[in-house]
Amino acid sequence: MKHSKLRIIPLGGLGEVGRNMMVYEYERSILIVDTGLMFPNDDMLGIDYIIPDITYLLDKRDWVKGIIITHGHEDHTGAIRHVLENIQAPVYATPLTRGLIEVKLAKGGLLQRSDLHTVQAGETIHIGPFKVKFYHVCHSIPDAVGLGIETPVGLIVHASDYKFDQTPVDNWPTDYATLAEFSQRGVLALLADSTNVERPGWTPSERVVDAALDQVFAEAPGRIILASFASLISRMQQVANAAQRHNRKLAFVGTSMVDNMRMARKLGYLDLPDDLVVPLEQALALPPERVVIMCTGSQGEPTSIMGRLSRGTNRQFDIIPGDTVVLSSHPIPGNEENVYQTINRLFQLGANVIYEAIAPVHVSGHASQEEMKLLIHLTRPKYLVPIHGEPRHLYRHAILAQQMGIPRENVAILENGQVLEFVNGQMRLGERVPTSYVFVDGSGVGEVDEEVLREREALARDGIVMVHLVLDRFSGSLRREPVITSRGFLTAGDADEVLARARKRVAEVAARANGNLNRDVEQALSNFLYNETRRRPLIYVTSARE
Amino acid sequence: MKHSKLRIIPLGGLGEVGRNMMVYEYERSILIVDTGLMFPNDDMLGIDYIIPDITYLLDKRDWVKGIIITHGHEDHTGAIRHVLENIQAPVYATPLTRGLIEVKLAKGGLLQRSDLHTVQAGETIHIGPFKVKFYHVCHSIPDAVGLGIETPVGLIVHASDYKFDQTPVDNWPTDYATLAEFSQRGVLALLADSTNVERPGWTPSERVVDAALDQVFAEAPGRIILASFASLISRMQQVANAAQRHNRKLAFVGTSMVDNMRMARKLGYLDLPDDLVVPLEQALALPPERVVIMCTGSQGEPTSIMGRLSRGTNRQFDIIPGDTVVLSSHPIPGNEENVYQTINRLFQLGANVIYEAIAPVHVSGHASQEEMKLLIHLTRPKYLVPIHGEPRHLYRHAILAQQMGIPRENVAILENGQVLEFVNGQMRLGERVPTSYVFVDGSGVGEVDEEVLREREALARDGIVMVHLVLDRFSGSLRREPVITSRGFLTAGDADEVLARARKRVAEVAARANGNLNRDVEQALSNFLYNETRRRPLIYVTSARE
Repeated sequence: MKHSKLRIIPLGGLGEVGRNMMVYEYERSILIVDTGLMFPNDDMLGIDYIIPDITYLLDKRDWVKGIIITHGHEDHTGAIRHVLENIQAPVYATPLTRGLIEVKLAKGGLLQRSDLHTVQAGETIHIGPFKVKFYHVCHSIPDAVGLGIETPVGLIVHASDYKFDQTPVDNWPTDYATLAEFSQRGVLALLADSTNVERPGWTPSERVVDAALDQVFAEAPGRIILASFASLISRMQQVANAAQRHNRKLAFVGTSMVDNMRMARKLGYLDLPDDLVVPLEQALALPPERVVIMCTGSQGEPTSIMGRLSRGTNRQFDIIPGDTVVLSSHPIPGNEENVYQTINRLFQLGANVIYEAIAPVHVSGHASQEEMKLLIHLTRPKYLVPIHGEPRHLYRHAILAQQMGIPRENVAILENGQVLEFVNGQMRLGERVPTSYVFVDGSGVGEVDEEVLREREALARDGIVMVHLVLDRFSGSLRREPVITSRGFLTAGDADEVLARARKRVAEVAARANGNLNRDVEQALSNFLYNETRRRPLIYVTSARE
Repeated sequence: MKHSKLRIIPLGGLGEVGRNMMVYEYERSILIVDTGLMFPNDDMLGIDYIIPDITYLLDKRDWVKGIIITHGHEDHTGAIRHVLENIQAPVYATPLTRGLIEVKLAKGGLLQRSDLHTVQAGETIHIGPFKVKFYHVCHSIPDAVGLGIETPVGLIVHASDYKFDQTPVDNWPTDYATLAEFSQRGVLALLADSTNVERPGWTPSERVVDAALDQVFAEAPGRIILASFASLISRMQQVANAAQRHNRKLAFVGTSMVDNMRMARKLGYLDLPDDLVVPLEQALALPPERVVIMCTGSQGEPTSIMGRLSRGTNRQFDIIPGDTVVLSSHPIPGNEENVYQTINRLFQLGANVIYEAIAPVHVSGHASQEEMKLLIHLTRPKYLVPIHGEPRHLYRHAILAQQMGIPRENVAILENGQVLEFVNGQMRLGERVPTSYVFVDGSGVGEVDEEVLREREALARDGIVMVHLVLDRFSGSLRREPVITSRGFLTAGDADEVLARARKRVAEVAARANGNLNRDVEQALSNFLYNETRRRPLIYVTSARE
């Protein structure tokens, strides 16, 4: 009997928030779990989002037997188009998750050539050598699942995003029985979400949002405008229920929100009475205290409805004094400033603004410390692999596991591209496969890499100074004064003054230059500007002969 | 009897965090309270900090009778050099605050020509027409004060940063008696800190940090390296006490921290036994479990000790596995990502990291909601002016006051430069005086304004494309292929490909251009690149004739 190994290869989601993608590889078979995107850090200038680097998979694309998406949030689904454009493999998801993927693929025109399969929580399916049991979990979206992956080397539990909500909005708790059953079969390794490892205790139930919404709805003197993620189907249900209780009509605004609402309603994940939902035009004609408008933009994205409302640039309606705005979401890490500036603007327009910091109009969908401990007790894994989080979350997850008796050497803290191997019931580190960030910059064609970002960072820090030299075509000596201009460097007045002196210095260097004129000028000007201003703008020299 | 008015003019600290500066003006007398700096938002590219715009004061500099600094934090003291370089006026502060200002002025060589006065909490001094009573407040720095400013139109209470700590580290509670005495005299207006208005309840006592430090010190297997602000004198005392209790020696590292420690020790605000404090070299030679090193860099600033330690670029020592790093501070708003990346790196170097999110190694120095209500009850003001905070904090402060019976029309929500007038016991809005941001960009000479920041933002978003045209000196037609290069635009390969096609387009336009060649090329290239890539890089065209 030969001892083949199971290889687990994270291509995203380790050491970062979002962009979740995990590869399970056994002999010549590959199973992919999740294809998420990630939002950029402050230092990733001009970038809209980042997707996993699938270079590793490209010459093994025939090995890919299936792609499982655990739930419908962007950080788990957002790169599905990019992956399916490169890898043709069947996609498995629960009904709502599939519905959300279909909305996404329809936009890109990929839907017809995709091979989508619906799986119900509780079902077991075979994908190549893997026997995968889907178990239901509570999260801030319905129909989320975790996976029990029976592999030839042992049972791996892939606990994607989850919480142990005891009173979920859809009355469907996390499937404790299946987790306990896994433990009876013996769990070789648990891969588990680390997002909330800094939070003690137990994450509050989604149900607490109902009480917070009731208070807001009872007190709001006029319209209520509530922003959330377009994929937060359970929040739509909660807002609809509150609207009914408080005798308000509900209008949905924004293409992605309306598309998702329609799809979820059709599939039975949203229960909205027909007389509750009205078109926006009708809502705007009703008395303000009879209206709730639900829209996108809870992250303050400038092009979203809420972003435009806060800037007074929305087309169909404006914020008016007396409006109550509810931001029913948590700022994505790195996005806090954007969200808070949106809130500031809304207050300045005369709205009252209710947000997570002042009322529980949003609760986390991720397990806190006691739930993470419960998951470990329920599954009793030999090995733990913390996933989903920045490095500090993964390290803190290891510390939490140690407190529960899992020795440090049985916890693997991985980075993306670090292969983990299981053979003969033992875990060990394998080689590293190349991975990097794949930056997606707007709807733009053409790519952006780390070199481009470094240039943007330099440009953003001190701007650029451009020099044009006109040389004598025979002697190579300067024929005229150098032309020097700048962008993003100093105020016009200060720049004029510094660059006037820089011209003299450039002329001197140009007169003495031999061989590489442009390089000599660049170097001399860089030193001159640093000495004069303590700044290091990018310098760009062109020359022409005449 | 003529009814002169009191004018209150915020030049900083309203609608933003930090950069606190308030002007009290009566007839031809001006009192300035605080001269703080502010840290930049994410969209202020390449900016180190921002100081108040004192343009309004420049042609009234003779009116300025005094400058009061309420406590020694940067957001209240950081612009003192800038102000004193422009306005010669006596500065009043309590002993420790004066000491911290002296350290700051000494660095700039301004100390000799400054006119500094020590005032004790409890004292009353006359500054022009203002009779100012200094009352002690608890904050995260000793020797902080609030002000009762008796003006010809009534008593104004200027409550700068404060908390009602019932068990302060220095056993000196906030001066309730004086606040009650103000209320008996009748308070026309209360100006009060809004920073923590989103926090329910009561801010924990500084004392809880002791227990958290005890736990860290008891459990740390090796060295403890603790970072905080250089001005957090009470934290130094707490760390020293913990070091003594746990039989560790303490070394301070970093010029500003050592300077402040020496000054505070000399003035009696720090009680450190001589055998406790050791030089760094000696600390590094001791067994790791006998050592605490206290340094700057709790905000992850790249040039600070902790910033360098996390990057492995510190000169005197490195992080080693077994180290326990404590970040004893709260991330400055907008700086969260920087702090968390530092924590991530420290974990990856093998340190255990303890920070505010996982243990109370820092508590806020600002009042929470119940304390803000207590201050209003103690002073019973007719009018309230929320200060210190972003717009949402000021608006929430107004809502809190309304809940306590202060009508909305008696609360003034101001922006910087908005004059507030008091005459005949009534408050009303006055005119606006011009104010803007004064950006300080490194140690650089020369100024940066909002136009420069807009250029940097454009450069950061999509980079720059530069075109050089060589024209026939007689006909003006293109003599060679246009040279087009880019920075921060696309990856080298993609840029080559797009710019090759752009060259053709530019050549066509140049052939047809009449009049303004450069402008026509810029316009055409901008459209071409947008159509091709959906990006709008800055475009810069130069031309030469030969």
